[in-house]
Amino acid sequence: MLAGQEKMSDRVLVRIKDLTEEKADEVVWVRGRIHTSRAKGKQCFLVLRQQQFNIQALVAVGQHASKQMVKFAANINKESIVDVEGVVRKAHQKIGGCTQQDVELHVQKIYVISLAEPRLPLQLDDAVRPEVEGEEDGRATVNQDTRLDNRVIDLRTSTSQAVFCLQSGICQLFRETLIRKGFVEIQTPKIISAASEGGANVFTVSYFKSSAYLAQSPQLYKQMCICADFEKVFCVGPVFRAEDSNTHRHLTEFVGLDIEMAFNYHYHEVVDEIADTMVQIFKGLQERFQTEIQTVNKQFPCEPFKFLEPTLRLEYREGVAMLREAGVEMGDEDDLSTPNEKLLGRLVKEKYDTDFYILDKYPLAVRPFYTMPDPVNPKNSNSYDMFMRGEEILSGAQRIHDPQLLTERAQHHGIDLEKIKAYIDSFRFGAPPHAGGGIGLERVTMLYLGLHNVRQTSMFPRDPKRLTP
Amino acid sequence: MLAGQEKMSDRVLVRIKDLTEEKADEVVWVRGRIHTSRAKGKQCFLVLRQQQFNIQALVAVGQHASKQMVKFAANINKESIVDVEGVVRKAHQKIGGCTQQDVELHVQKIYVISLAEPRLPLQLDDAVRPEVEGEEDGRATVNQDTRLDNRVIDLRTSTSQAVFCLQSGICQLFRETLIRKGFVEIQTPKIISAASEGGANVFTVSYFKSSAYLAQSPQLYKQMCICADFEKVFCVGPVFRAEDSNTHRHLTEFVGLDIEMAFNYHYHEVVDEIADTMVQIFKGLQERFQTEIQTVNKQFPCEPFKFLEPTLRLEYREGVAMLREAGVEMGDEDDLSTPNEKLLGRLVKEKYDTDFYILDKYPLAVRPFYTMPDPVNPKNSNSYDMFMRGEEILSGAQRIHDPQLLTERAQHHGIDLEKIKAYIDSFRFGAPPHAGGGIGLERVTMLYLGLHNVRQTSMFPRDPKRLTP
Repeated sequence: MLAGQEKMSDRVLVRIKDLTEEKADEVVWVRGRIHTSRAKGKQCFLVLRQQQFNIQALVAVGQHASKQMVKFAANINKESIVDVEGVVRKAHQKIGGCTQQDVELHVQKIYVISLAEPRLPLQLDDAVRPEVEGEEDGRATVNQDTRLDNRVIDLRTSTSQAVFCLQSGICQLFRETLIRKGFVEIQTPKIISAASEGGANVFTVSYFKSSAYLAQSPQLYKQMCICADFEKVFCVGPVFRAEDSNTHRHLTEFVGLDIEMAFNYHYHEVVDEIADTMVQIFKGLQERFQTEIQTVNKQFPCEPFKFLEPTLRLEYREGVAMLREAGVEMGDEDDLSTPNEKLLGRLVKEKYDTDFYILDKYPLAVRPFYTMPDPVNPKNSNSYDMFMRGEEILSGAQRIHDPQLLTERAQHHGIDLEKIKAYIDSFRFGAPPHAGGGIGLERVTMLYLGLHNVRQTSMFPRDPKRLTP
Repeated sequence: MLAGQEKMSDRVLVRIKDLTEEKADEVVWVRGRIHTSRAKGKQCFLVLRQQQFNIQALVAVGQHASKQMVKFAANINKESIVDVEGVVRKAHQKIGGCTQQDVELHVQKIYVISLAEPRLPLQLDDAVRPEVEGEEDGRATVNQDTRLDNRVIDLRTSTSQAVFCLQSGICQLFRETLIRKGFVEIQTPKIISAASEGGANVFTVSYFKSSAYLAQSPQLYKQMCICADFEKVFCVGPVFRAEDSNTHRHLTEFVGLDIEMAFNYHYHEVVDEIADTMVQIFKGLQERFQTEIQTVNKQFPCEPFKFLEPTLRLEYREGVAMLREAGVEMGDEDDLSTPNEKLLGRLVKEKYDTDFYILDKYPLAVRPFYTMPDPVNPKNSNSYDMFMRGEEILSGAQRIHDPQLLTERAQHHGIDLEKIKAYIDSFRFGAPPHAGGGIGLERVTMLYLGLHNVRQTSMFPRDPKRLTP
């Protein structure tokens, strides 16, 4: 077995994406998967795939290949991994369906590195077919459960490869930007002793002879770090919600990109930092992930994501006014329903030509007890949501940092003070004013790319009905 | 309340670390905590602290301060946050005990931003006192449980600030290096349906009407990503171990820095990449975190961390031979006990002058079922651990990528095949040879800095006896 050999090999494998006309007539070694295979008389045409790239390879009876070898090549199961030695040849005409259209590989040797079983649970070509084409031509597409049940294969498609490379980029850009802004990365515990917000929607864990909970957010810990003088912190990690919501945008476990920051005089200092972080992510994606965006667009066509700099910030009452003008009936202190959220997104896009905006100063009544009231209008709060293509991706606020006011607000909400004692006590030894927010990674990826289900942007999604693979 | 004012302020706050002789005679605003306060007749000396930096501030009766103001300043509780307007003055002599030794601040105005309660559960000066000094002079130090029970205050010490800034740097360097090497960051689920390695040491979660487990490692998911052609992946996230181990280096929840990588011909390709990643981290820490390292050393003196480039790689049998030469009796296929691990670390340091090395080719018998056997000597395996200052920080191996061999090895270990069916099935549709490993973040931080308990490098540690804060 090659993989277990004792010495390092000095054979150099060339990447498929690097096989261009410049390499014409060179002999190269390539490792790839058999994407498709078609035998035709004394020839066999293979398409070799490597991540998002593929090339046509020809095995033909002649100086370097016997009849047996052509037959052998033709019989290798699709998705098997092979090492191929071949000569790069200029193609007589563009090779449709391959990313490397100008060259093909004339195979001299072929070894199987890992053999796939003959029957695949789904076909990669079906899995990248746009829904519309499938419907129009009656050609097969792959439904979501089949994809998720066979995720190892579904993740091999060019679309999946692009989605998750871009998602890796979002994380990288998020942290890069914040580190540049002087933030410190923190790690917060996921197993906690008390359910932070009263105990609804929380998963219980058996913890030795006792029990514990899974953190619904890192918020308490972020705030403790602010009280411990870290000033500007962020964390990236799993967030758990035991909500029995079976929608396109809810997961029971998702990745939170969380920010918390002390400010000097006004919570808008924090809002501006978060909004700018999002803008830096959007710009970075445009610059570094153009190929990935285009690959996803082929299967899921979508308008490019638009944003303003600086970010548009509307007050909640302005949003309500726009909705009322469009015929929606709602009270000043009503929360936004999901359809109204989406409608407002469309109205904002029409008026301001942006897919990203901030809605600021939510009614105090619809926000959690720890939200700082607006000092000017006590019916409002210093809190905000951020939206992409009309869907919420971040919820945040200035937090109450005064233990006295925090106690009063908790009592007003009917919260058992005993249960949140540790939380309130965190603020007793000097706490700077601070604000923050939590971003859902899978939603950002979904909405940036204009996808329609958060399960497309979670590698191994968890929902009330899915715990595998 | 300043924090709630309607408009942004145009007052500029200067950072304490920037208050140097160059700013002499300038009037500045500073926000800081009252670190200490000492009234003396018509004067009050304050030390103002901001993260790892502090400066002396003088409030004296005169043109800008009344007797009442001096009294007011002297009565502000320690750890309260204040805004101070003052003139920067060159100090007549170096001010001991402050980081800004050449200047002091002559206070003109002082406002309390957040008042601390009068009695602190621990004193910051005690919390940074070296153990030795405490023992010799009979001065107070703070024990670990008091620290952890009052973590918000303990984290404010210069030592804690330095430890966790450096830890943030380790994460950043880890990812920076891997992104540069072409790795993709993945997010793996923490709630899983089946306990991966037989079900020992796993936490159970109630999941709606059913139950689930907390992932003991992201390994299966990393491997699935390799089978899905991502080629080189890493992830940073919590790892859960329900082990009732109350040692200096075990936690029930820790942060795993995980790597998995397909290789071409030899698993040493992966070992080299991981080792180089560690080397890049060590170098980056030396370059970027010298201040933090020195700050921690003041409280916890320690030899600088030494490493070689390329990293020293010994075979397990060589390690055993060194131990035997030092008088240890052990069989060829015995695992290393913790004391022997540490002894070997000392022997390696003496002989090779490095605090970081790799032990390769562990006996197959002491490794998990999915470990690839050594093709040359079937009693050995293609597996390795990495050590810092004689303690294990990484365990890794080439994984079996052939479903047939994997089945045989599982059976040999007496593992119920039904329970690992999904795992084995992942390799049925073509799997490249691959290897990887998992690094414990808290251990790396602890051992790099020469600390002695992993609870010092976990912000909010979890062990069988601690779930709070």
